[in-house]
Amino acid sequence: MANPIYVIGHQQPDTDAICSALAYARLKQAQGADVVPARAGAVNPETRFVLDRWNVETPTLIDDTAADRLILVDHNEYSQAVSGARDAEIVEVVDHHRIGDVQTSDPIFFRTEPVGSTATILTHLYNEADETIDTKTAGLLLSGLLSDTVLLRSPTTTETDRSIAKRLAETADVDREEYGKELLQQKSKLGEKQPREMVLSDFKEFEFGSNHVGIGQVETVEREVVLDQRNAILAAMDEIVSERDYAVLLLLVTDVLREESVALMAGGHAATVEDALDTSFTDREAFLPDVMSRKKQIVPPLEKNFS
Amino acid sequence: MANPIYVIGHQQPDTDAICSALAYARLKQAQGADVVPARAGAVNPETRFVLDRWNVETPTLIDDTAADRLILVDHNEYSQAVSGARDAEIVEVVDHHRIGDVQTSDPIFFRTEPVGSTATILTHLYNEADETIDTKTAGLLLSGLLSDTVLLRSPTTTETDRSIAKRLAETADVDREEYGKELLQQKSKLGEKQPREMVLSDFKEFEFGSNHVGIGQVETVEREVVLDQRNAILAAMDEIVSERDYAVLLLLVTDVLREESVALMAGGHAATVEDALDTSFTDREAFLPDVMSRKKQIVPPLEKNFS
Repeated sequence: MANPIYVIGHQQPDTDAICSALAYARLKQAQGADVVPARAGAVNPETRFVLDRWNVETPTLIDDTAADRLILVDHNEYSQAVSGARDAEIVEVVDHHRIGDVQTSDPIFFRTEPVGSTATILTHLYNEADETIDTKTAGLLLSGLLSDTVLLRSPTTTETDRSIAKRLAETADVDREEYGKELLQQKSKLGEKQPREMVLSDFKEFEFGSNHVGIGQVETVEREVVLDQRNAILAAMDEIVSERDYAVLLLLVTDVLREESVALMAGGHAATVEDALDTSFTDREAFLPDVMSRKKQIVPPLEKNFS
Repeated sequence: MANPIYVIGHQQPDTDAICSALAYARLKQAQGADVVPARAGAVNPETRFVLDRWNVETPTLIDDTAADRLILVDHNEYSQAVSGARDAEIVEVVDHHRIGDVQTSDPIFFRTEPVGSTATILTHLYNEADETIDTKTAGLLLSGLLSDTVLLRSPTTTETDRSIAKRLAETADVDREEYGKELLQQKSKLGEKQPREMVLSDFKEFEFGSNHVGIGQVETVEREVVLDQRNAILAAMDEIVSERDYAVLLLLVTDVLREESVALMAGGHAATVEDALDTSFTDREAFLPDVMSRKKQIVPPLEKNFS
């Protein structure tokens, strides 16, 4: 029997990836489509909190044996997609990242907007389709939006995100600030994590020219807890570089309240990275004032300098 | 001084490419953006008729010296874009073709839908922005829609196209059938064209794997007028193949009233093409019943068989 069409976010899924898959699958189902929400990796503690809070079933974990027809949400690059995506038919895309390397034979529905979260665009799609957003779906969309924009503090946040967050919070019947802080606390439970896990739990891969680059990000309100383990983290990063043959591996440790980051580096090309980020590394560490967004503040300059 | 942002359709622009550039530039301007409508090639006789009929200025012809920042309409593949597009910043995309090879560093507004024309999607964008479509703009959008869907007869035509065409005709205050037939007649004025011009006037290039493929299309109500010149056309095609090093060059001669096509072929790979299109060529000519759409009925099977 043929596999269904899966609505699926990126590997190492974050809350926006999981909640967008759930919310978009629900919209497509309401429109009569036969789709199933899925995920390409383990659910992180923040997302676990969200799924429990809104009493929603965890999407199905799939791999290349099931990836025949995919609707990609919150990503549009094969290197970030579920295993098997390159051979699958990409049926639709809804995303808020840069345009990646997906190509299709047929025209499809492909929609990206430069906003703070995929959840924001999905709210547009519900509105355009005149489909009611129920309490539970509003809770999921709000969670994706607040998580990806770090409670509307990230520089990726737009006016659209702000007004949609307000409306979603009303529909979900929660206080936006209070609920957002509960979410952030989940994100910050880092004390228990192993160094390797810290690097890889919110991790993305890129091809810049012929350079394979990995960029992890830890968003925290307790930067010291992370940097206390700096040497163990750097050792884990070196290990990952040699396993995966990265040209560069960066870990952004982002203080979401102070709105600034510290970057740790493994691999080579220090000069290129320093030039791109307009900083200098001392002892493999650099301070990046005002940097909160990997997507907007790290990926574009790196891509330019590596190409 | 910096060049402005140009809203621009593909090379060898057709009516949808030109009218979409004009209509989207108008919408962006109404929203306060500083954009200029442009074109990447000569205006064909059908489009000339449209611009005269609605009393609209011809968009600026640009080349790589001006292509710094582009909004692409009606295409999203570099091989079809204005010269210089690969080095330009792609700021937005609105299109109804397959997903091509555009990549960006930053998130952008990128919107494709599987509908009959880019004009259809632009009508959505006007509605979503709550922007009024004036008589002139309705005339342009209707022209793009009717031209690309061959008066709503092409298999790419969707219910959305039909209902939007109805509303646009009302706003433009024209009889849809009558106006559409006037358009088709412009398309059919082929008697005066040189063979080379027939092949190249509605022409697209594709990269299928490592194969450079060109596909021209002539839409006509007078197939005989075209096929009377068959030997001269095939000679022109051979010439183009050797100039541009195509693996295959096809010319679809589409009878828009009988809703069928004849394909002429130059270059090699006959077996691959025959297998893809489920037909056989005799004397470099094949009959393709029910085939009207290059995009939907020719490109996908060719791409599959060549990859």
